[in-house]
Amino acid sequence: MTTRNIAVLVGSPRKASLNRKLALALAGIAPEGLRLDIVEITALAFYNDEREAEPDAEWVEFRQKIGAADGVLFITPEYNRSVPALLKNAVDVGSRPYGKSCFAGKPAAVASLSPGAIGGFGANHHLRQSLMCLDVPVLAGPEVYLGNGAALFDEQGGIAADGTRDFLGKFLVTYAKWVETILAAR
Amino acid sequence: MTTRNIAVLVGSPRKASLNRKLALALAGIAPEGLRLDIVEITALAFYNDEREAEPDAEWVEFRQKIGAADGVLFITPEYNRSVPALLKNAVDVGSRPYGKSCFAGKPAAVASLSPGAIGGFGANHHLRQSLMCLDVPVLAGPEVYLGNGAALFDEQGGIAADGTRDFLGKFLVTYAKWVETILAAR
Amino acid sequence: MTTRNIAVLVGSPRKASLNRKLALALAGIAPEGLRLDIVEITALAFYNDEREAEPDAEWVEFRQKIGAADGVLFITPEYNRSVPALLKNAVDVGSRPYGKSCFAGKPAAVASLSPGAIGGFGANHHLRQSLMCLDVPVLAGPEVYLGNGAALFDEQGGIAADGTRDFLGKFLVTYAKWVETILAAR
Amino acid sequence: MTTRNIAVLVGSPRKASLNRKLALALAGIAPEGLRLDIVEITALAFYNDEREAEPDAEWVEFRQKIGAADGVLFITPEYNRSVPALLKNAVDVGSRPYGKSCFAGKPAAVASLSPGAIGGFGANHHLRQSLMCLDVPVLAGPEVYLGNGAALFDEQGGIAADGTRDFLGKFLVTYAKWVETILAAR
Repeated sequence: MTTRNIAVLVGSPRKASLNRKLALALAGIAPEGLRLDIVEITALAFYNDEREAEPDAEWVEFRQKIGAADGVLFITPEYNRSVPALLKNAVDVGSRPYGKSCFAGKPAAVASLSPGAIGGFGANHHLRQSLMCLDVPVLAGPEVYLGNGAALFDEQGGIAADGTRDFLGKFLVTYAKWVETILAAR
Repeated sequence: MTTRNIAVLVGSPRKASLNRKLALALAGIAPEGLRLDIVEITALAFYNDEREAEPDAEWVEFRQKIGAADGVLFITPEYNRSVPALLKNAVDVGSRPYGKSCFAGKPAAVASLSPGAIGGFGANHHLRQSLMCLDVPVLAGPEVYLGNGAALFDEQGGIAADGTRDFLGKFLVTYAKWVETILAAR
Repeated sequence: MTTRNIAVLVGSPRKASLNRKLALALAGIAPEGLRLDIVEITALAFYNDEREAEPDAEWVEFRQKIGAADGVLFITPEYNRSVPALLKNAVDVGSRPYGKSCFAGKPAAVASLSPGAIGGFGANHHLRQSLMCLDVPVLAGPEVYLGNGAALFDEQGGIAADGTRDFLGKFLVTYAKWVETILAAR
Repeated sequence: MTTRNIAVLVGSPRKASLNRKLALALAGIAPEGLRLDIVEITALAFYNDEREAEPDAEWVEFRQKIGAADGVLFITPEYNRSVPALLKNAVDVGSRPYGKSCFAGKPAAVASLSPGAIGGFGANHHLRQSLMCLDVPVLAGPEVYLGNGAALFDEQGGIAADGTRDFLGKFLVTYAKWVETILAAR
């Protein structure tokens, strides 16, 4: 069985980020054949196409890492009912130069997590709108809106509730199938 | 080569609908192996789950037709920056009873057309948000926002401009591949 | 003190609708000077501008009722992450003929309610996108996304929890001020 | 007549930005009593609430400038069908610390401009969703989606077409009235 390498983008810059904890927890319960690794995005300068003649080293490195991955998993908090600027910037940097998006055709999935009840619904769907125009095949369901984020984890950083752990495990299995479906068509 | 039968839903009830003309024009230029047939939606009563015990004959028939199709192509105008009620109702009727959505898993695509410049962008994306929660794998790109709709057709109802006809032909070829990609994974 | 008459549109056709219960509960706790009355929308046929030459009596009556109101309160469930067709149709019918929208300039507010945790966020914002293009000044905050709708009411149809009742009371007071702000500028 | 000072936020970091040109052109045709000044946002670091104990000087200064303004005009390009990270970050920085948003209650308006036909519709509405949750009263209409942005300006940086200049002039007059409507209610 081929191992698929999935780049995980975490939308929060916080050290104590719940979204980062989620990324690590998901990496721990990923099914065989799916390897999740965080690709850092906090060092990326705001995208500006006037700087493409001599692109930042961080931009180039980021694009290479995404380009080398088999798929991309986006894990996002919600800032003001939309995508945090940090994550939107990673999307913008990766999407250019025009016609050379590093995301194009990569099987992707989106999970959102917030402290409140709504679970990042607004961020989740705004992000999907961007990915759609970049020709990224994003897994439709199951939808992952994780609310009440502070209560999600146990002391070891695992998913505390059995039901939620099972749900997220099934989400990853579904995503793994999606990766195979999309890659098989290349 | 297997022929794939695609149900086409047209979001406008108008007799002189530009969206219906687009559906017919697309049917005429579909690649071999992709057959497009309009499934009518104007007779569907507003969805109400209290009526599921004895569902309307029109609801049942609509669900059967969609269920028998290999994929679904949504063609929508924009009413007030969103999906016309007529088309949203077809989505709602087809999505129920809960857990028995006739759309689930069907490879789909969305095209929007409007008289103005924006080409139904608002309707296109609102519709995608609904389809996503119904676990419908919708083709990401190419995006199809057809503006200035009245000038789109020649006198025989074909696509007037060569560039637009080529673009729509490529859209259908890409969609045909998408249908095969999704169906291959079943 | 002048009494402001607010037309309340309920997005669900269900007899046992939680959204209708919410409309009635809000009418019961509205501040002095704000009168809430439901305007029924279930009899409105799907909008079709080809029928404007001889518009349905129901369309005409609906437009007159909205036109006579001082403001409009939209109460919506979420169907498939968007506005139910029933309510979208009322928006579409009221918005036409072009240039004669009965909603134009009316101070409005939106509340959404759903059985799940997310509280109709998707429907709430899709509806706002439509209202914006109709030049309707919609109250921004407080946002009203009522989740877990079945537990919202007591046996008499009132709002069960003190905190929620207080929140909704403040929402209505804020809306009443919004109505005065907008009407003062006429 | 009191002059109202409006902070203008430009969503593009480009030196040759069409959106910046639009901001300057609008400042030149603003009605008497409305003064438009760009508040720069390119120096703002990505928002991170873990840094609020000792906030960046740039964050503090930005919040003060917005806080001192009578209203805010957002001028945005579209990056990947949504708000550029640069502008989203300004919204995020200004919205915090929680409960102390510098935008709260400020009469605002949104204009979007893009090189393509769609005129930044996606960015425009995503931005409105964020502003709504921040309790910002945003002008509904007229909607301003400026497509084909490169052809918009004459050689002196003015609006080239009479019709577009008139439209934008009316937009600013409507916005000036909106500012007075909202400020009158304080």
